[in-house]
Amino acid sequence: MAECQGDGEGAKSPMELYEKLTAQGEQVRALKTAKATKADVDAAVQLLIKLKTDYKQMTGQDYKAGCPPSENSVAPDNGPAAGGADDEDTVDPWNVSTNNAKGVDYDKLILRFGSSKVDKELVDRIEKVSGQKPHRFLRRGIFFSHRDMHQVLDAYEKQKSFYLYTGRGPSSEAMHVGHLIPFIFTKWLQDVFDIPLVVQLTDDEKYLWKDLSLEDCHRFAVENAKDIIACGFDVNKTFIFSDLDYMGASPEFYRNVVKVQKHVTFNQVKGIFGFTDSDCIGKISFPAIQAAPSFSSSFPQIFKGRKDIQCLIPCAIDQDPYFRMTRDVAPRIGYPKPALLHSTFFPALQGAQTKMSASDANTSIFLTDTPKQIKNKVNKHAFSGGKDTVEEHRKYGGNPDVDVAFMYLTFFLEDDEQLEKIRQDYASGALLTGELKKLLIETLQPMIDQHQQRRKQVTEEEVKQFMTPRPLHFNF
Amino acid sequence: MAECQGDGEGAKSPMELYEKLTAQGEQVRALKTAKATKADVDAAVQLLIKLKTDYKQMTGQDYKAGCPPSENSVAPDNGPAAGGADDEDTVDPWNVSTNNAKGVDYDKLILRFGSSKVDKELVDRIEKVSGQKPHRFLRRGIFFSHRDMHQVLDAYEKQKSFYLYTGRGPSSEAMHVGHLIPFIFTKWLQDVFDIPLVVQLTDDEKYLWKDLSLEDCHRFAVENAKDIIACGFDVNKTFIFSDLDYMGASPEFYRNVVKVQKHVTFNQVKGIFGFTDSDCIGKISFPAIQAAPSFSSSFPQIFKGRKDIQCLIPCAIDQDPYFRMTRDVAPRIGYPKPALLHSTFFPALQGAQTKMSASDANTSIFLTDTPKQIKNKVNKHAFSGGKDTVEEHRKYGGNPDVDVAFMYLTFFLEDDEQLEKIRQDYASGALLTGELKKLLIETLQPMIDQHQQRRKQVTEEEVKQFMTPRPLHFNF
Repeated sequence: MAECQGDGEGAKSPMELYEKLTAQGEQVRALKTAKATKADVDAAVQLLIKLKTDYKQMTGQDYKAGCPPSENSVAPDNGPAAGGADDEDTVDPWNVSTNNAKGVDYDKLILRFGSSKVDKELVDRIEKVSGQKPHRFLRRGIFFSHRDMHQVLDAYEKQKSFYLYTGRGPSSEAMHVGHLIPFIFTKWLQDVFDIPLVVQLTDDEKYLWKDLSLEDCHRFAVENAKDIIACGFDVNKTFIFSDLDYMGASPEFYRNVVKVQKHVTFNQVKGIFGFTDSDCIGKISFPAIQAAPSFSSSFPQIFKGRKDIQCLIPCAIDQDPYFRMTRDVAPRIGYPKPALLHSTFFPALQGAQTKMSASDANTSIFLTDTPKQIKNKVNKHAFSGGKDTVEEHRKYGGNPDVDVAFMYLTFFLEDDEQLEKIRQDYASGALLTGELKKLLIETLQPMIDQHQQRRKQVTEEEVKQFMTPRPLHFNF
Repeated sequence: MAECQGDGEGAKSPMELYEKLTAQGEQVRALKTAKATKADVDAAVQLLIKLKTDYKQMTGQDYKAGCPPSENSVAPDNGPAAGGADDEDTVDPWNVSTNNAKGVDYDKLILRFGSSKVDKELVDRIEKVSGQKPHRFLRRGIFFSHRDMHQVLDAYEKQKSFYLYTGRGPSSEAMHVGHLIPFIFTKWLQDVFDIPLVVQLTDDEKYLWKDLSLEDCHRFAVENAKDIIACGFDVNKTFIFSDLDYMGASPEFYRNVVKVQKHVTFNQVKGIFGFTDSDCIGKISFPAIQAAPSFSSSFPQIFKGRKDIQCLIPCAIDQDPYFRMTRDVAPRIGYPKPALLHSTFFPALQGAQTKMSASDANTSIFLTDTPKQIKNKVNKHAFSGGKDTVEEHRKYGGNPDVDVAFMYLTFFLEDDEQLEKIRQDYASGALLTGELKKLLIETLQPMIDQHQQRRKQVTEEEVKQFMTPRPLHFNF
């Protein structure tokens, strides 16, 4: 997954940054006019984007050529559209970046990826079909985009079941709260629909992409499985697997991998994932391995050899390229296309412009953090939408839309009314930044503590059980 | 193994090939300028050499930068030596062709591939170390080239054992006599050195390259296994596996595949195998699967997890590209390089210019042929080195060097003196073409008949035993 981008250095005032930006814009134009190499132009453009991000963060306004920053430049209440059509966010399995303090423009992403919006009608329908109040991630647009959810629900209403597939790339032992999002939601889906779940741990992928040994990647997979199990999954309904283990334990899984590999060319993965001729052949063929669990015949022990059980994949939107490819291949090898539910990104403590990094301890709250660490991190690092002084804050109010503490509460505070009240109080200035952060700390501390307690209770035996290919308690 | 693949079909005209060559030359220069890794540069250079060879073959002229092919560029008349020193044979896993009626120029191939000649000294040494008369394939230069055989023998003399690895691409149920060559020789090696043998059936490869279903490829693998078993292998010393089965049965095998896949780039396989961007990602990553059995840790059930047992691969020379790649990767992932013994090609009935085709029944003697079919095929299709009339033949003699019946006897007639007498009599004209063919028919008929008898006795249970991962009767 994505590392953190460099942080803003250099410019001290909005005007200084404005001037730097103007100069950089000219530099880009000059390079393009001079037909400089693509690498040079790209580098200059990247710096330009970075400066724009810094500018937006510093001033709360989008940079506009010819419009120097106004004296009282503060974060606007609404800004996503102001940036203009050319300002595209970067979203792929390895890079996520945006220059908008509120984060990626998800409506634009839906258009770009060709998925569908999770609208009120769909949320209502999920409520009706499941008979349960929709999860807060659905109520609040955190799972904001989908593919073929109506088809899944149509079939479910006709007693045709489906299964869930999600995953994680185990690049280290440490998982942060953001990594829990797909699992929290998947657990809810499993509970309300009562269906099987398969969880892929792509330890082979991490070996191919990172400077890690196979042994370490596999160890991380097992450690991460403990955190996933601690989310409360039912061992009778859930199969968790490491690629390195399961590939060598299931001829059916390998057969599906080979089937996908036969139907995808290098040209295609080059287009979808940006691979180059210098990439190793393992990376180039890996997408087929992430694709294969989308097909029920990859798990004959669960589905009794049936290949027609539809798959629903809850995942962060950056994983969509894998499944666009999968959906393209599926009909050509005689399988149903997997449906998808996409989540937004969980913001880094430093702000919503980037995804968090598992390698930088200060970009997020880790599942191993102590109550004190949680408190310090939130207080020190959580980007604030508040004003510089209490007086200003009371007078003008804060901006919850760019405030990371508020964003985190949107993910973890269950009570809708309480959340709305916090939003209003913060926007009006009634709630101070320190108070808002305190509310988050009080939400996170018990949540992380409970997770740690549950994780402690996960035995090696239990992990082994979850990770053993076996029938689940379902009849197919 | 496989038939034609993508690369050749790319350029249809000399001008197209010329343009490809020019582009590749630029690519090599660009990589050198950019100080690319040695592996990437080497790969690009190898593709350049291959394209030059193709160009020469297509146009009869050497490629010269800046000099597009002339209108009347045609392949040179196929007189053996007429082509001159630059007239290179094409030898890769999917194409073997030469315009010399005696077959590929193997001495040149040794130079081109950088292998070593199996000279009298080596043959004598094998005799000394094994304490057995060398197999006729060694006495007659059929296994003509090697890599690191002296190293294998040095170690063997010091009680350090090794193991054998060979294979087959199961593209149909029907195997012909030529397919037996590596197995006949491997059986001899196993007998005289008393060592384990692993036989890879690349059913996944055949699925990727051919218009066949996975089920068919796997079925062909099992059918071919019966013919291999009928060569007389000892079930206590031999493990035969289908990739489709074993990949899904051995995490250790998959781990070695991933290790190789991490250490080989697309640039490299492009250079070695001529893959293009339009090839599927399965083909691109397949070479790692043919590489992995070269490492003893791929078979923990046999070698008790040891990764330092050297591998010796007897195979036809066209498979060498796979193992050049394997030998390049081995030290980087902590494994010994496999040693190799390369055979010449078994000639088609129509002559030594091409490899046989399993899909054309008249290009060879099949293991299922009846005595009558054998007789008819030899009499009708075996290219003769004799003269047009009996009178001329008696007067001028025949040419055993281009006579396919004589070549086949070189492969299958055990008695050196008898073979030499036949050669002399045919060259002098004392032996007529019909008589020579009769000798071959009398050699082949009982040989094929015995094979058929043995194959009939191979039970499903026995096949299952050979193909089950299990310890062999060796202590490692």
